[in-house]
Amino acid sequence: MKINDPAIIAELRDLYPRYENALIHNDVATLTAMFWDSPHAIRFGAGENLYGTDEIEAFRKSRPAVNLERRTIRLEITSFGTDFGSITLEFERDTAAGKVRGRQSQVWVRMPEGWRIVSAHVSTLPMSKL
Amino acid sequence: MKINDPAIIAELRDLYPRYENALIHNDVATLTAMFWDSPHAIRFGAGENLYGTDEIEAFRKSRPAVNLERRTIRLEITSFGTDFGSITLEFERDTAAGKVRGRQSQVWVRMPEGWRIVSAHVSTLPMSKL
Repeated sequence: MKINDPAIIAELRDLYPRYENALIHNDVATLTAMFWDSPHAIRFGAGENLYGTDEIEAFRKSRPAVNLERRTIRLEITSFGTDFGSITLEFERDTAAGKVRGRQSQVWVRMPEGWRIVSAHVSTLPMSKL
Repeated sequence: MKINDPAIIAELRDLYPRYENALIHNDVATLTAMFWDSPHAIRFGAGENLYGTDEIEAFRKSRPAVNLERRTIRLEITSFGTDFGSITLEFERDTAAGKVRGRQSQVWVRMPEGWRIVSAHVSTLPMSKL
């Protein structure tokens, strides 16, 4: 298994800003499309635990579309073979700059329909703890 | 790619309690061995962001070995092909029962040396948010 094949990393590196852009603009259709359409998709969010496409999509639709802007502090992309990748990042929101650090982990799998997020975990920590 | 092949799920289901047992008993050698030995291994913990084997191991060694007992509330294991798996769970500690819900996500990859955790994310939420 080739780890961090530059061609695969490039594919994942292209997906990351698309997700980020959709998130900031609360583009629910794109965000939903980037997640695996399955009852096994999981998203542990900053304030919710969501199991399956239906719960994830319902959350997206009900989310207030304000203060979603954020800056990526550190981005790490690792690929395993041709079909599996991990994208993790730390982020900061303007509304909590210097106070709260966000962490996001995504597991990406290349499905027949394309790369999809099969599992994600978002959480925040007070900067004072780090 | 076969998803949730029963044989692969069985392998991952066997790994989960080994990790859990090592965690509760603060068995640093086993915990370290179950993580991918790589500068690309990542662990976002309940109170720390760790990059690479050295940071992860240093954290394990410095961690107070008290109050690590926890109960798994919901466990989900999903496999992709023969070499990739996602294990997620919610947990509760006796010291914060009914007040705080923990969430743990692990990405498992079958390396030449065996199954290893390549990325993990642990966080907590007040139950009042859920």
